[in-house]
Amino acid sequence: MSMRRDQLRWNGWGRLGESTGLSPAREQWLRTELGRLLQQGFTPSPAPVALEQIQLAPCKLKPESQNALRAACGDNGVSTSSLERVTHGLGRSLPDLLRLRRGDVPHAPDAVVYPASEGAVASVLRIAADANLAVIPFGGGSSVVGGVEALMLRGQAGALCLDTTRLDALVRIDRENLTATFQAGIDGPALEAALRPHGLTLGHFPQSFEFSTLGGWIATRSSGQSSSGYGAIEDMLVSVRVMTPEGVIRTLSVPRSAAGPDLNGLVLGSEGTLGVIVEATLRVHDAPAVLEDRGMLFRSFADGVASVRDATREGVHVAVMRLSDAAETVLAQTLRRDPSRRFDPATAALALLARFGYGEGRTALVYAVEAESRRKASPALRRMFSIGRRHGGMPLGSSPGRAWRRDRFRTPYLRDWLLDQGIAVDTFETALSWGRLESGHDTVLRAMQRAAEIHAGAGLSMAHLSHSYPDGGCLYFTLLYPLDHANELLQWEAIKREVTEAIVAAGGTISHHHGVGVDHLPWLAREKGALGLAALRAARTALDPRGLMNPGKLL
Amino acid sequence: MSMRRDQLRWNGWGRLGESTGLSPAREQWLRTELGRLLQQGFTPSPAPVALEQIQLAPCKLKPESQNALRAACGDNGVSTSSLERVTHGLGRSLPDLLRLRRGDVPHAPDAVVYPASEGAVASVLRIAADANLAVIPFGGGSSVVGGVEALMLRGQAGALCLDTTRLDALVRIDRENLTATFQAGIDGPALEAALRPHGLTLGHFPQSFEFSTLGGWIATRSSGQSSSGYGAIEDMLVSVRVMTPEGVIRTLSVPRSAAGPDLNGLVLGSEGTLGVIVEATLRVHDAPAVLEDRGMLFRSFADGVASVRDATREGVHVAVMRLSDAAETVLAQTLRRDPSRRFDPATAALALLARFGYGEGRTALVYAVEAESRRKASPALRRMFSIGRRHGGMPLGSSPGRAWRRDRFRTPYLRDWLLDQGIAVDTFETALSWGRLESGHDTVLRAMQRAAEIHAGAGLSMAHLSHSYPDGGCLYFTLLYPLDHANELLQWEAIKREVTEAIVAAGGTISHHHGVGVDHLPWLAREKGALGLAALRAARTALDPRGLMNPGKLL
Repeated sequence: MSMRRDQLRWNGWGRLGESTGLSPAREQWLRTELGRLLQQGFTPSPAPVALEQIQLAPCKLKPESQNALRAACGDNGVSTSSLERVTHGLGRSLPDLLRLRRGDVPHAPDAVVYPASEGAVASVLRIAADANLAVIPFGGGSSVVGGVEALMLRGQAGALCLDTTRLDALVRIDRENLTATFQAGIDGPALEAALRPHGLTLGHFPQSFEFSTLGGWIATRSSGQSSSGYGAIEDMLVSVRVMTPEGVIRTLSVPRSAAGPDLNGLVLGSEGTLGVIVEATLRVHDAPAVLEDRGMLFRSFADGVASVRDATREGVHVAVMRLSDAAETVLAQTLRRDPSRRFDPATAALALLARFGYGEGRTALVYAVEAESRRKASPALRRMFSIGRRHGGMPLGSSPGRAWRRDRFRTPYLRDWLLDQGIAVDTFETALSWGRLESGHDTVLRAMQRAAEIHAGAGLSMAHLSHSYPDGGCLYFTLLYPLDHANELLQWEAIKREVTEAIVAAGGTISHHHGVGVDHLPWLAREKGALGLAALRAARTALDPRGLMNPGKLL
Repeated sequence: MSMRRDQLRWNGWGRLGESTGLSPAREQWLRTELGRLLQQGFTPSPAPVALEQIQLAPCKLKPESQNALRAACGDNGVSTSSLERVTHGLGRSLPDLLRLRRGDVPHAPDAVVYPASEGAVASVLRIAADANLAVIPFGGGSSVVGGVEALMLRGQAGALCLDTTRLDALVRIDRENLTATFQAGIDGPALEAALRPHGLTLGHFPQSFEFSTLGGWIATRSSGQSSSGYGAIEDMLVSVRVMTPEGVIRTLSVPRSAAGPDLNGLVLGSEGTLGVIVEATLRVHDAPAVLEDRGMLFRSFADGVASVRDATREGVHVAVMRLSDAAETVLAQTLRRDPSRRFDPATAALALLARFGYGEGRTALVYAVEAESRRKASPALRRMFSIGRRHGGMPLGSSPGRAWRRDRFRTPYLRDWLLDQGIAVDTFETALSWGRLESGHDTVLRAMQRAAEIHAGAGLSMAHLSHSYPDGGCLYFTLLYPLDHANELLQWEAIKREVTEAIVAAGGTISHHHGVGVDHLPWLAREKGALGLAALRAARTALDPRGLMNPGKLL
């Protein structure tokens, strides 16, 4: 079991003992700055409840089911402890964290099982079918769309959380084909660690990298920060094995096939509703020896967008491109500033740059070229440099990129600290064609700001362009707002609804890489159409006629 | 209607009046050479029957259905003529041609309809549902897997061929997103001609380019000769509209989505079994100003494969890579040789090259770099050159590539001429991971040769590597064998069965880009698994509960 849940925070992000790393002085300064940016005060949140205070519904499993599960998964592979039930009862979205902090876990599973083999997964599904239990596949549990809550269909006798993290083996590395086969419960760091001795990398680094699994990446159609270089999960997936209530689905390991519709495409994004992803073969890459991180400043978001679009279309070999809009650029600078220094050189430099037009609307691009040597990295660096210059970009050297890489998995810790202060952080993401991207950016930002002002009195809205394609890109929005402690969930729901409506109206998808879960379900039929959904539901019913698998989500 | 069927050969490939362009002297010489290569004689085929001699079953449509169809499609949009029923009754596979030449069209549609709007397509489906008729969507009719034969389910009252070629409009070009939207019945040349004034290209050039449609490319998961540069059809497809018997499915035009399983992926490869593809939005590209075609000779197939694999993995911007194996290299040289010249410079040059190790096992690679200028093409040309040299490649300059480009759509005409001579040409294709590619090449070649020798007394087997990916490639096999005129179809069937078994045993897919149709159906469950097929069938049933759409194929 590569992921030790007892070493993780049960009501927040990440590992126990880790935090934002802010000094008390810096914390105080940040609070002041945020108050200034929000133009409104905020009240610290009540202290989170202790685990022991949480009242869970009693476990509904019959003794014979529990015994059968122990026979399949081993005595230490079945748990009904509060810690296990609570940590497997919610994901890591804003409303999930709000509920965990209040001790409100309405849909905890009755038990958590840790099958350690494909056979054990099959046994669990059989036991669940016999006892009429819902089964919720659970990898890292980092869903931010309510994808892992243990919902049940009416009439189901209970819910099992099937934690996949004991299925974490490297099955095989195939150097000749540049592919690797893993059991699907392996998490990001363990997967990369298994590839490293072979000089290989998968190149999949979602924000949740440390606390998410291969199976989860496939089930949610995940995309990582290096998608410009390594593609998204669908580009990496060669073949997959899925244990469904009706048996195994497995796809063939070939580079391409025209033998009917692609079954990988049915499994990608299935969110545990078809079955449990147990194994997958992935395209891997020679690990780069050189990571060249760079930053560039633009006078406007439009200039930065044009640069990213051109680089994508021209096929420049760049692994990462992340363009912050003006508001996010300001916040990032605020977060990095050291208030203990009276003279801040970055601030001074920016004041100088403002004279050349890089003023209030300036936006920062971080990009990275990964290659086997400095020499091999240089053509892409030169081309990025010249594309950026064409759109008025000002090179910032390597430090912004390095700072991004150093901190890139730390942002969620900040979210917990902000929650302590009484500030909610929610994120929204969509993909839009280039022609709609800038107006979509404006529309959604305005909707976020308006929703925050109506429901929270104030808000701080920003976005970045996080993934790009020849025909469009992904906008990732962040909204900070003061929590209404008496009404946190209704406040969240109202804001979520208004922002998602704006995304749909702008012509965007309801999710570029977070998935659907419970939170996006009300908008799914508008994206897929009733008939499209009916086709997917029918496929699901063929594999899971009784609706055991992750009910209430997606389909 | 961009494709005029009355100007096409009804029992062979292509346009009336076009042919191989061989002179009588060259034809005579080729016959001698083929006899030498096959080491066996062959008997010219009986003359094909005339259209008038073909006995079709009487049209089973009731007058009220015919009237309703005329109301939907116009009087000239419904035909029950022999020419229309025959040309829409079979595709262009070897067994299809054998049957057409004998006048054996067992499954001609009862009528051919040409709806000119999406509304008319909907009306046709409604009329078909009311009258219990099978509907076979038909684009260019170039299927080589039996995909367009008008089969019926037991109990169906007749079969309509729904010819999509009046749905051939350019709907919209979106320069900013580099996308273009077309009605799906547009054929290859018309589609490229519509893009040309805008300086754009789709870059999709399957062998059937001149006589196939956008809808057919999507329905069969087509891949063209320039797939290294422009991708296969799934890489091009942004969104699609499909008219099913239950209504319209349409997908969203966004660059990527994680909102559940991808519906485009269900439509791609659906072979008309879900409904009629009526419109699609595609990623397009700035048309290249410069096409740099090159050839290179290798000492062995393995050396050439290694070069193509390395170029693919290193992401060299090359549009086309096609590597012939030793036997195909010999045949290509034979086809190009001019027997009227006593001194053939190419033969002399090859004799010289043999002294440097480019002897009997030599293989020829053709590749093309497409770019907006010579200067922009040169880095890729340099990299291809150096990768090829690393594996012992001998540059052949630009003439082999140019010859390939000039003749690339002409090969099927040669097939008809060979049929006249009594020589069958069949092709088989698969995709294999690199680790299995060379042994798969050997195994399948041996199976082809053995099957040809058993069932035809002799055979000439060859292959080329036609498409490549980081983890593997597509092998395209060609088999020539003397026809057993008394037993042509059984002979074909036996050979097809044995070769396909060898492909499956080698770990290959049953089709990289031809599709399933009727011919590959017996092997589909082995590739997808019974449960995988059940899921796809269930999705199909949700869209077409009565099984009207292209019955007997795929699902």
